[in-house]
Amino acid sequence: MAHTRATERGDTAFAANLHRLLNPSSIAFIGGRSIAAALQRSRAFGYQGDVWLVNPTHAEIDGERCYARVEDLPRAPDATFIAVPSAAAVGVVRELAARGAGGAVVYASGFSETGAEGAALQASLLEAAGDMAMLGPNCYGLLNGLDGSALWPVAHGATRVERGVAVITQSGNLAYNLSMSARGLPFAYLASVGNQAQVDVARLVDAFVDDERVRAIGVHLEGLKNVSAFSEAATRALARGVPIVALKSGVSELGAQLALSHTSSLAGSDSLYDALFKRLGVIRARDPVELVETLKLLSIAGIPKSSTLAALATSGGDAGLVADLAEAQGIAFPAVSAQGRATLETVLPPYANIANPLDFTTTPWGRPDAMRACCDALLGERPGAAAMILDYPKADTGERPQCDIAADAFAASARANDVPAALISVFPELTPPEHALRMAAAGVAPLQGLREGIAAIGAAMWYGKTRAARLAEDRLSTLPVLRVPDASANEAGGRLLDERESKRRLAEYGLDVPAAVCVRPDEAPAAAAKLGFPVCVKVVSEYLPHKTEAGAVALRLESPEAVASAVVRMTESVARYAPDVAVERILVERMASPPLMELIVGIKRDAGFGLALVLGSGGVLVELIRDTATLLLPTSEQDVRAALLGLKLGPLLTGYRGGAAADLDAIVRNVMAIARFAEEHAETLLELDVNPLLVAKDGAVAVDALVRFAS
Amino acid sequence: MAHTRATERGDTAFAANLHRLLNPSSIAFIGGRSIAAALQRSRAFGYQGDVWLVNPTHAEIDGERCYARVEDLPRAPDATFIAVPSAAAVGVVRELAARGAGGAVVYASGFSETGAEGAALQASLLEAAGDMAMLGPNCYGLLNGLDGSALWPVAHGATRVERGVAVITQSGNLAYNLSMSARGLPFAYLASVGNQAQVDVARLVDAFVDDERVRAIGVHLEGLKNVSAFSEAATRALARGVPIVALKSGVSELGAQLALSHTSSLAGSDSLYDALFKRLGVIRARDPVELVETLKLLSIAGIPKSSTLAALATSGGDAGLVADLAEAQGIAFPAVSAQGRATLETVLPPYANIANPLDFTTTPWGRPDAMRACCDALLGERPGAAAMILDYPKADTGERPQCDIAADAFAASARANDVPAALISVFPELTPPEHALRMAAAGVAPLQGLREGIAAIGAAMWYGKTRAARLAEDRLSTLPVLRVPDASANEAGGRLLDERESKRRLAEYGLDVPAAVCVRPDEAPAAAAKLGFPVCVKVVSEYLPHKTEAGAVALRLESPEAVASAVVRMTESVARYAPDVAVERILVERMASPPLMELIVGIKRDAGFGLALVLGSGGVLVELIRDTATLLLPTSEQDVRAALLGLKLGPLLTGYRGGAAADLDAIVRNVMAIARFAEEHAETLLELDVNPLLVAKDGAVAVDALVRFAS
Repeated sequence: MAHTRATERGDTAFAANLHRLLNPSSIAFIGGRSIAAALQRSRAFGYQGDVWLVNPTHAEIDGERCYARVEDLPRAPDATFIAVPSAAAVGVVRELAARGAGGAVVYASGFSETGAEGAALQASLLEAAGDMAMLGPNCYGLLNGLDGSALWPVAHGATRVERGVAVITQSGNLAYNLSMSARGLPFAYLASVGNQAQVDVARLVDAFVDDERVRAIGVHLEGLKNVSAFSEAATRALARGVPIVALKSGVSELGAQLALSHTSSLAGSDSLYDALFKRLGVIRARDPVELVETLKLLSIAGIPKSSTLAALATSGGDAGLVADLAEAQGIAFPAVSAQGRATLETVLPPYANIANPLDFTTTPWGRPDAMRACCDALLGERPGAAAMILDYPKADTGERPQCDIAADAFAASARANDVPAALISVFPELTPPEHALRMAAAGVAPLQGLREGIAAIGAAMWYGKTRAARLAEDRLSTLPVLRVPDASANEAGGRLLDERESKRRLAEYGLDVPAAVCVRPDEAPAAAAKLGFPVCVKVVSEYLPHKTEAGAVALRLESPEAVASAVVRMTESVARYAPDVAVERILVERMASPPLMELIVGIKRDAGFGLALVLGSGGVLVELIRDTATLLLPTSEQDVRAALLGLKLGPLLTGYRGGAAADLDAIVRNVMAIARFAEEHAETLLELDVNPLLVAKDGAVAVDALVRFAS
Repeated sequence: MAHTRATERGDTAFAANLHRLLNPSSIAFIGGRSIAAALQRSRAFGYQGDVWLVNPTHAEIDGERCYARVEDLPRAPDATFIAVPSAAAVGVVRELAARGAGGAVVYASGFSETGAEGAALQASLLEAAGDMAMLGPNCYGLLNGLDGSALWPVAHGATRVERGVAVITQSGNLAYNLSMSARGLPFAYLASVGNQAQVDVARLVDAFVDDERVRAIGVHLEGLKNVSAFSEAATRALARGVPIVALKSGVSELGAQLALSHTSSLAGSDSLYDALFKRLGVIRARDPVELVETLKLLSIAGIPKSSTLAALATSGGDAGLVADLAEAQGIAFPAVSAQGRATLETVLPPYANIANPLDFTTTPWGRPDAMRACCDALLGERPGAAAMILDYPKADTGERPQCDIAADAFAASARANDVPAALISVFPELTPPEHALRMAAAGVAPLQGLREGIAAIGAAMWYGKTRAARLAEDRLSTLPVLRVPDASANEAGGRLLDERESKRRLAEYGLDVPAAVCVRPDEAPAAAAKLGFPVCVKVVSEYLPHKTEAGAVALRLESPEAVASAVVRMTESVARYAPDVAVERILVERMASPPLMELIVGIKRDAGFGLALVLGSGGVLVELIRDTATLLLPTSEQDVRAALLGLKLGPLLTGYRGGAAADLDAIVRNVMAIARFAEEHAETLLELDVNPLLVAKDGAVAVDALVRFAS
């Protein structure tokens, strides 16, 4: 596809054009009467570059001169906002590309989102753009708070910043509302990607990672068009320490259906996105407000060095709520040190409860030194982050100067102790804008809403921990980009290997399977005696995937006679269940000892994500408690180990309540064998199931396995 | 205790005084110079009754006349705001009570929250109040938005209403911030209860239930002082259909510690509060914003009749987020009807995705009839509730009139179709106050924040469902008030019954236990043969509660010889484990068949909550997945059945994946037997454990039991 070539990072001309679009030294606005207002909005936003209007019929609009045609412009514009109807857009894009323009935003709708005809028009548009960068069509465009360029059809509420966040969204409506949100989020960039005909989410992430003024990146998406490209860009972001926060809708089944019909996003189940984000250190926000607050914390206060929090509150009620909300985020509160306690005893009343979170009572209220001492008592211990909970009352109460004293003491303490810090109002609306600005200037994130504020801190701590772990493992440089197998592999049918063959092939990669022989039915009793009892016997046939249902399995047989009669019973049963299947081969296996635990290990294939390894605790209970973890391939021993221990029943593996510990090394070895097999057959493997993998004190053994290849 | 008497509902004089405090026809303010401003605030709030100042030294303050003493007042005040220091408060309260005042707010701190001396002072205060109603001490007081009385020390942000919510909070700070929150919550009352020396949360709930202008009650608490009284008041609220929303802090371990030291609230584990709230239909909010938004929905829009939602959004992105957030709340979206689809096809573009939640696209935007048609297409199906997602941009965009058209069409449709409805902004700050007022006047709740808005709808649906179920079961009138056993029962030690005796006593109440005999050790083999094999044998002694650890249990014995040697082994083992215990009695029991599932059933005693029944799935996995349900006693068969089916492993009981179904009637019968036993021994029972209760296709059997009484 054309856009695949154009969006490859190696394409120098395109990359340069995208850079021009994002940071233009000149902007052209092409369209009807509304373009004058659009131009004026860029000017009002403080944009200093050249701005031009292009309109074929008016010599001027609202007092602004118009050029009749693109070719009349003084020079090729770096950026163009195209506000003409969809049918006319292709011609304009072609003219711009021919003129050597950097990039363009195509605002019009009426392309692939409307059906086949629109999709054809979009293909023409893409072809017309060539190496010129193009955002849209069907998008709101691009705001740049760094230089004031506004390639934007309507009013916006963004303000100018020197550094900040870049937010990319698939929803024009969310882009508009984000720009209107009055939360002091410093927008370096705000981009609405629309149909992503050419420039997509991944390409923008990639571009923003290289802009040193971008401190964090926000992404709202319904689905990724190109998982590999996103993975590559996000890996670079992780390496550089630019956090990404993603709000992905379509978590629910209904939401996924809506996303599919809304943008034809390639879905992939939500658990695959979870796996992708976890792997890449991408923070997941659950709603737009959480997205904004988390980005605010990361861009203003930075990244916590540990998962401990010092919190100060103006009341015991607030302190209790902080403790409750933080626990759910895995945030720890270090106890107040002896030195801190000694300090607090000098500034707080005798009945004060000296604890973290601290209710600092009304005693130090309004006294800068006492407030500072309270803050230092906790922040001096260098927690991972610090928070003060403070709601500003209405201005006419006269209380705000006292609030300022508390906030300023906290900000000074955070700076002196070098602790990332947030001032959080319980009610979002009780952070006045001027106070938010002052805090932001002091490097303290003004977070709005206690729940979102604490969630943001928890998320930032997770990011810091995840990134540190990746750096320590030296896996940033080696984290391979996901391979996405050719989607043409036959998803529906395929070729099934029987159990015997599945195990044989997997054993070549190191999977531990029971001692076994495969014999004719009449040879089974003798073979069992030679193998040693107890045994289990199974009918082997690639036409009989559901052996248990067919009555083709017999367990815990203790004698040759028992084996002989089991073979007779199984043969009769299979004849009833599947008359076409001839019972020609019997698998005789040594019975495994009763395990400590049963696991399931499977490989699933997704057109967008490639191969995913699904680990879980097995048995009948598993579906009820949904105890699984998903890892995208290729994976690592560290991630497999962490996934196993993170299962709900994971504690059983390490010896629960005096029980024996499982052979974790053996489990990891077996899972990695399955992963290697899958990777080496990535082009053709459709499905793989090892169920169960029995786990013991010494070793693990796969007692059933099934592999399906594309035919 | 004195306050127990005074707060009993039957106390007519006290009840009348509390009513005077809540709805005063005259208010006195007693204290220093600040009282004039307090008086003026009531006047500014539109209070029409008499207002008086009392100060012994000033003839007037800020131009307001002062009476020197309480006895000089023209008549006994209905309500008094006492702003004198703690030491002086007792005398003032005594004077007021002597004068026949209705009630008083004691603002001063320095009472029981400061230690023993303060507690003594608080006892004097309580005694001085007598039958006069008293709020506090150490509280902000009381705002009444219905009549404008403001017994309040500082500025507030409340507005006058004709009906609305009553909010009661243990945190003065939260009361202040709630009054300042700019969310359009109509406060009929806002009460800060402080130390609750006399009037407590339960007493206020009870009073507000009888006020027809109160549409919903909000409660913020760290713990309940009187569970029985709260339970009684909340039961009355449920009967009358006045929803209660509770924000309880101390959910986390750290939060519970803070609450304990902050207000000495009697704790009770959080699961007991969950059980209490669930039983009483009390909605649980997780943070202050959720509390406010849920109250707003309930008080303005009312209670949904079912758990289905029709949602309309201005973009596909918003529609997807609604679907995701609603799924977590158990909210269902009925499909668009054929008739609705036909209507939508006439007003939406051909490429629109006709679904619920509906992205109504930009086509009907700004057109009243088209917007109304969209709304009616969904609301005409009479869903339980309806929501429109709409963020108002800044005023200077000129877009707000179009937003108003959409909002008004939605409100008219909600009214015409009689559907409780909410207009939700994704960003809390994008609901302008004047728009919120217009929506509230139209009966549409203006909810701020998509997550909180959807959570509020889910909570209101839960309330409606719970109340309907209670009404259908005719259990509102019969729901007994919780009995709280005398806390003097010996919690630490107590008298343990051995397994044999525990089972015998429980069997008298209907617990199913295995066929068994209790014999001398040498009689065991013969007794087993008579009982029938397989059997299990156990040493019986009240001094040997941990039989398994002592090696005093042998299972699955198949012959008299096996029993004989088991008895020898057990005797030796007990001699090593507990040399003082003589093996004199052996319990020989028929072995139960392998069960479908193991359950545990226990009784826990809590000083505040009385007896609680804990049900759970048994075995080693249970602690890992925490699969338990707690029911307060007395309970009902319906609640037990619902609790069993609500367990994570509950589906195993009804036949999971083709497995056999358990005998649910037998399980319920056995659990109710345990509950009856506990209720009849409520004064002395400390602890009871049936572990496991084995569950089969036909019947259930308690194979071990342990009962501990107060000694």
